[in-house]
Amino acid sequence: MILTVTLNAALDVTYRIGRLRPQGSNRVRATAERAGGKGVNVARVLHALGRPTAVTGLVGGLTGQAIRGELAAAGLADRMLAIEGESRRTVAVVEESVGDTTILLEPGPVVGAEEWAGFLDHLAALLPQAAAVVLSGSLPRGVPDDAYAQLLGLAHARGVPAVLDADGPVLRAGLPAGPDLVKPNADELAAATGLTDPVAAAGALVDAGAGAVVASLGPDGLIAVTPQGSWRARSPERLVGNPAGAGDAAVAALTLGLVTGTPWVDRLAEAVALSAAAVAAPLAGDFDPAVHRALRPRVDVQPLHRPRSS
Amino acid sequence: MILTVTLNAALDVTYRIGRLRPQGSNRVRATAERAGGKGVNVARVLHALGRPTAVTGLVGGLTGQAIRGELAAAGLADRMLAIEGESRRTVAVVEESVGDTTILLEPGPVVGAEEWAGFLDHLAALLPQAAAVVLSGSLPRGVPDDAYAQLLGLAHARGVPAVLDADGPVLRAGLPAGPDLVKPNADELAAATGLTDPVAAAGALVDAGAGAVVASLGPDGLIAVTPQGSWRARSPERLVGNPAGAGDAAVAALTLGLVTGTPWVDRLAEAVALSAAAVAAPLAGDFDPAVHRALRPRVDVQPLHRPRSS
Repeated sequence: MILTVTLNAALDVTYRIGRLRPQGSNRVRATAERAGGKGVNVARVLHALGRPTAVTGLVGGLTGQAIRGELAAAGLADRMLAIEGESRRTVAVVEESVGDTTILLEPGPVVGAEEWAGFLDHLAALLPQAAAVVLSGSLPRGVPDDAYAQLLGLAHARGVPAVLDADGPVLRAGLPAGPDLVKPNADELAAATGLTDPVAAAGALVDAGAGAVVASLGPDGLIAVTPQGSWRARSPERLVGNPAGAGDAAVAALTLGLVTGTPWVDRLAEAVALSAAAVAAPLAGDFDPAVHRALRPRVDVQPLHRPRSS
Repeated sequence: MILTVTLNAALDVTYRIGRLRPQGSNRVRATAERAGGKGVNVARVLHALGRPTAVTGLVGGLTGQAIRGELAAAGLADRMLAIEGESRRTVAVVEESVGDTTILLEPGPVVGAEEWAGFLDHLAALLPQAAAVVLSGSLPRGVPDDAYAQLLGLAHARGVPAVLDADGPVLRAGLPAGPDLVKPNADELAAATGLTDPVAAAGALVDAGAGAVVASLGPDGLIAVTPQGSWRARSPERLVGNPAGAGDAAVAALTLGLVTGTPWVDRLAEAVALSAAAVAAPLAGDFDPAVHRALRPRVDVQPLHRPRSS
């Protein structure tokens, strides 16, 4: 199975209202709750594709219970580790009259040093069953800055390939541990390298330790810089919809490609098609299977000349 | 003990943020949670005054568990009845930079007919220990419109005096059952009667079945229309602060007066002082004891001429 790690798992709550009145009292028409965090989204996509997957990470309190209840309802194998603190909620306030969304992000729990040590043991016990491990998203407070480097070290010690999808200092701290793949978006790529050209920036991340880099550039598709070559992959159509979860769908496709050893051109076509199908679905972690099937044979993948970054 | 009933109990959540960016992503700096609903606030005030009290009502789901956990932490005797649905949350988003608050109110559970029948039995079993019962706030979905009339009938059948603090059609539906006291605010009084003069409107509620009416008019204090006479009571000072919970503090004072048979002039002075002390405290259900002590002897209570409402 593919094991996804969501250290800062969340309960994603959606409030539907007519129109938000700031500084006023707003009646919520309907609420919905779903387990969230990027690793959970990756696992949802893998599960919908019929691939064995399991989710791990840290959850706590009654919100943690709600996360686990929703994972069970979604049929996702739950290998979360319980912590003392209360898991965070994200609240998306959707204004039905205009389609705007206001997001409130709780700060989440503080993880103790013993809890972190316990998670290293917990992950080590899960790795023998894992074909690959996906490390996604932000770190909760209290977890060391090099948390992903520690987890990558554990995975590689057991010969398990690992994908890292993180941002800023958390991404940079993971690179020396040699993730097999990193998947920054355009902003994350620029912030991590200080370079504006995405191909040069992706090359800089390879130079810093990444086995391969696939950067998601929104409507401009994906670029890949790998030991086997560099490519740009684009959707034949521009889809409008919900971009949340599109990157997680790409990670799901790229991780499957890593596990099965599919040629890069096919991996990238699959990642673009699945990502576009995720944009077409209203909730992060879902994708529209008809869009996926229709786009898959039509994705354009072209070799790229990779400039030297140094 | 004084039993307070909160059929639509809530978990009141506070999010502290710098400044709310509508249609943006907002990081919450700190969260706080507290059991809420008007009856819970009344019980908090009674408990802080050292008076025996207990809270009942309907709670469900993980949010219901959180409500019960917070009641226990606050030392309030919990006689809530569990239901299948998930209790509601209210989210107050406080902008620390400007002091503004945006409120989001979840719709709350739908109560089944059998659950409502179960609550009637549950309340009947609690009434023998109750010196008075306080019925406060809105009704959850699924509960009959005349819910408070049914509860008033149970209380009176066992000789327990009852206070009703409700709004609009829910208040009107309760009046024929003869609540010993109702406590509308100015808006509720006008909405329930269509009359703009508060004294005439209070008289109309007495004519419709209320044993006595005490209306809270914000900075204009209280007016009381009772079988023993009519009065206006005012604070000697205008306090600025948080008006949420001020009405609940007045209900706590008035219910104590009902139980102990204190003369109306004293009940009203206590209600004004406690209400003002609640305005001086940041959270609904709390009051500032120093403000309460300082104002109590200085409240001005004057007899009123009661015009006929018909």
